[in-house]
Amino acid sequence: MAEQKQQQRISGDRLQAFIASAFEAVDVPRDDAKTIAQLMAQADINGSEGHGVFRLPQYVRRIKGKAINVRPNIRVERELAAMALVHGDNGMGHLVMKFAAEKAIEKAKTAGVAWVGARWSNHAGPASLYATMPLAHNMIGLYMAVGSANHLPPWGGLDMLLSTNPIAVAVPAGDEPAVILDMATTVAAYGKVKTKAQRGEMMPEGWMMDRTGNPLTDPKRANEGFLLPIGGYKGYGLALVIGMLAGNLNAAAMGRDVIDFNNDDTSETNTGHAIVAINIEAFQDLKEFKSGMDMLIRDIRNSQRLPNVDRIRLPGDGTHVARADREKNGVPIPEALLAALDQLAGDLKIAKLPR
Amino acid sequence: MAEQKQQQRISGDRLQAFIASAFEAVDVPRDDAKTIAQLMAQADINGSEGHGVFRLPQYVRRIKGKAINVRPNIRVERELAAMALVHGDNGMGHLVMKFAAEKAIEKAKTAGVAWVGARWSNHAGPASLYATMPLAHNMIGLYMAVGSANHLPPWGGLDMLLSTNPIAVAVPAGDEPAVILDMATTVAAYGKVKTKAQRGEMMPEGWMMDRTGNPLTDPKRANEGFLLPIGGYKGYGLALVIGMLAGNLNAAAMGRDVIDFNNDDTSETNTGHAIVAINIEAFQDLKEFKSGMDMLIRDIRNSQRLPNVDRIRLPGDGTHVARADREKNGVPIPEALLAALDQLAGDLKIAKLPR
Repeated sequence: MAEQKQQQRISGDRLQAFIASAFEAVDVPRDDAKTIAQLMAQADINGSEGHGVFRLPQYVRRIKGKAINVRPNIRVERELAAMALVHGDNGMGHLVMKFAAEKAIEKAKTAGVAWVGARWSNHAGPASLYATMPLAHNMIGLYMAVGSANHLPPWGGLDMLLSTNPIAVAVPAGDEPAVILDMATTVAAYGKVKTKAQRGEMMPEGWMMDRTGNPLTDPKRANEGFLLPIGGYKGYGLALVIGMLAGNLNAAAMGRDVIDFNNDDTSETNTGHAIVAINIEAFQDLKEFKSGMDMLIRDIRNSQRLPNVDRIRLPGDGTHVARADREKNGVPIPEALLAALDQLAGDLKIAKLPR
Repeated sequence: MAEQKQQQRISGDRLQAFIASAFEAVDVPRDDAKTIAQLMAQADINGSEGHGVFRLPQYVRRIKGKAINVRPNIRVERELAAMALVHGDNGMGHLVMKFAAEKAIEKAKTAGVAWVGARWSNHAGPASLYATMPLAHNMIGLYMAVGSANHLPPWGGLDMLLSTNPIAVAVPAGDEPAVILDMATTVAAYGKVKTKAQRGEMMPEGWMMDRTGNPLTDPKRANEGFLLPIGGYKGYGLALVIGMLAGNLNAAAMGRDVIDFNNDDTSETNTGHAIVAINIEAFQDLKEFKSGMDMLIRDIRNSQRLPNVDRIRLPGDGTHVARADREKNGVPIPEALLAALDQLAGDLKIAKLPR
């Protein structure tokens, strides 16, 4: 935290305006640029730093490399009462998944539940951005995706056929804040490994394994090993079925077909996602549901703690704290990222991010 | 395996007939008794020993204690195109969840996807029994439940407000066997702890923790500690949201309201479950989906292995092997369980399980 205090704080509005101007500079239509920028800034405000403005230079590189279509015809390919398959036409993932989430919400209003899959999409930022969209409609949101780089082998294997395939679930409550689970199926996300390398720190055992099966703790040697799934074979199984639900079901890339978008600025990724909206009122009285959630959340928060544990957290607590702080004080941006964004502004001939 | 060879093998048919006669003896209607017996025997055939005939004495005890209703009016309470809420009327969980799964399959035929929740149900055996029901209809199945005893505290806590809430996902393939993930959200299921205690073995570190936060490895001291979730706070988050989806959403028991059905033969449990059926043909051509699944499965199976790993497994491989063996050679029943079943037969005045 001491480190964060020294960081420059940028307001969400300024961040959003800067991101939008960058996308406009590479020919993204104004409305789309604004939509993407709003979602990316929201990621930073929510504390998902690895998926916000941090990704901007990479997205711009991929747009310049023609890997991403800036004028996509995002459309429903197939639909029934409770499902749709969205064709993203290789547009920015944020646009595709906002479209998909809105479709799921609309269908769940009448069908009770709706499952919308997407293909020919791209990296869309943090899973919780989309899982939380149904909340405002008194719905539960569930999001899954095929990750955008394979860093996980099957359990017992060496070939990296799987990604950190994330899942997010957002459940509204009454007076209590919503429960928002957003997790990779690996012990650590790959971004965390990169952060450790940048800081010159070692990783704890359990994050990665080398190709002989021994713990890998030096993040500078990350490319000699692979991430470990949560709970061993269980996390492998979860990553696999999430990949089937978000990838195979939608005829999106999965397994050997996944492109490492960190090391490729020219190839289409055919990224697959799934979003599910569950209309709570279809199942029971909304007030009763919410008071039941409040009771459960309070029971957990007030439950007895292990020695040296200061408080019991609910999934999403970190997001709520980050949001309250950043909406008031701005988003902390590390020096190195500020420098990269200044350079990007120069390249794109747009105004620098104002401090 | 050497141990298993010494065990008595009982054919699935004989097992099923014995289970059905036991339920009939406690006033379960013949058709219902047959349905429950078929599912319980299937659990044993699939290798889910902890959830098959092993549970019979307990179920009979709970029926005798009036904790379970033997003449339930299992019915749809609410429904829309893509959802239903099933009221189990406190019937055997197997009956409730077979009804719910059939409802989900029926709705998914036209709506593309269907989500059916159940409340006032009971323990229904292994999650995979229901997740696999949609497979025969070229659908993906997804099942979640609130477990029937709380052995898991919130992360950092001591109060056991959560169960091992399981999730199962079954995905059909073409020539390859279906992928069937069936997992508790704890590192070990509580049944495994009991087995270790019976065998006089110690548990590995990581299964359980004591109330000071130290590893608990003596299974005889299990009641002095609690199970650990997979991936630390991530598994806690998963157990929690599965509980919300299978419990809170259906106004079924969750958190403090969960009854420990191992130590209570008289209370209604209001167990909650959820089953989702996903009609693959709504999303894409079925043949293409299946050939894509076959390719993925073969890529994984044939991928490079870590030193000393003999083969790469897919979730469900164990089930397929167990089923092939047990359909041919019968279900291995340990001596202690055979003795318990003989005693049950005596109590109920029915014929013993024939060897």
